Amino acid sequence: MITIVAKHFVKEDKISEFLEHAKKLVEITRKEQGCIKYQLYQDIKDAKILTMIEEWQDKDALDRHSVSEHFTKIVPILVGLVEKQTEMNIYKKAE
Amino acid sequence: MITIVAKHFVKEDKISEFLEHAKKLVEITRKEQGCIKYQLYQDIKDAKILTMIEEWQDKDALDRHSVSEHFTKIVPILVGLVEKQTEMNIYKKAE
Repeated sequence: MITIVAKHFVKEDKISEFLEHAKKLVEITRKEQGCIKYQLYQDIKDAKILTMIEEWQDKDALDRHSVSEHFTKIVPILVGLVEKQTEMNIYKKAE
Repeated sequence: MITIVAKHFVKEDKISEFLEHAKKLVEITRKEQGCIKYQLYQDIKDAKILTMIEEWQDKDALDRHSVSEHFTKIVPILVGLVEKQTEMNIYKKAE
């Protein structure tokens, strides 16, 4: 299993727009084969920190997601709404 | 529900020691009332990035955890093994 944490620092005046597009991405992605979890979170102290936590069955599922129509269409829009580069980490369970 | 992502940057030569203590913390914490998830992850490209993803039922459960004997005993040991300050974010679901 592969876990991804993608931490976005969204421009203050673009939070609603980011949420709107991210919602669509979440809805479609959850239907993908091999997608175990795909959930957007918001920092309780800093509303502009929006973090996606993802769980994928394996690398194949993740690779399919990365070239999917919804990913390649929506992610560039999200990238345009952030104030600095997204911090992305790909994890395996440590135990 | 409260979700926590705690990203630790562990000193290169202290990774095994960190894992050993973290394992104990995970084992005991998972038995706590209100603990839904408590899982340690390791970055697949940078082994010294060790991130705990936690889910708690509510703030009361988290508050109890923060003053528990195992937390107050083990966390200071972990803090001594990192090379820079841990990045901690507390999240709510965004949708």
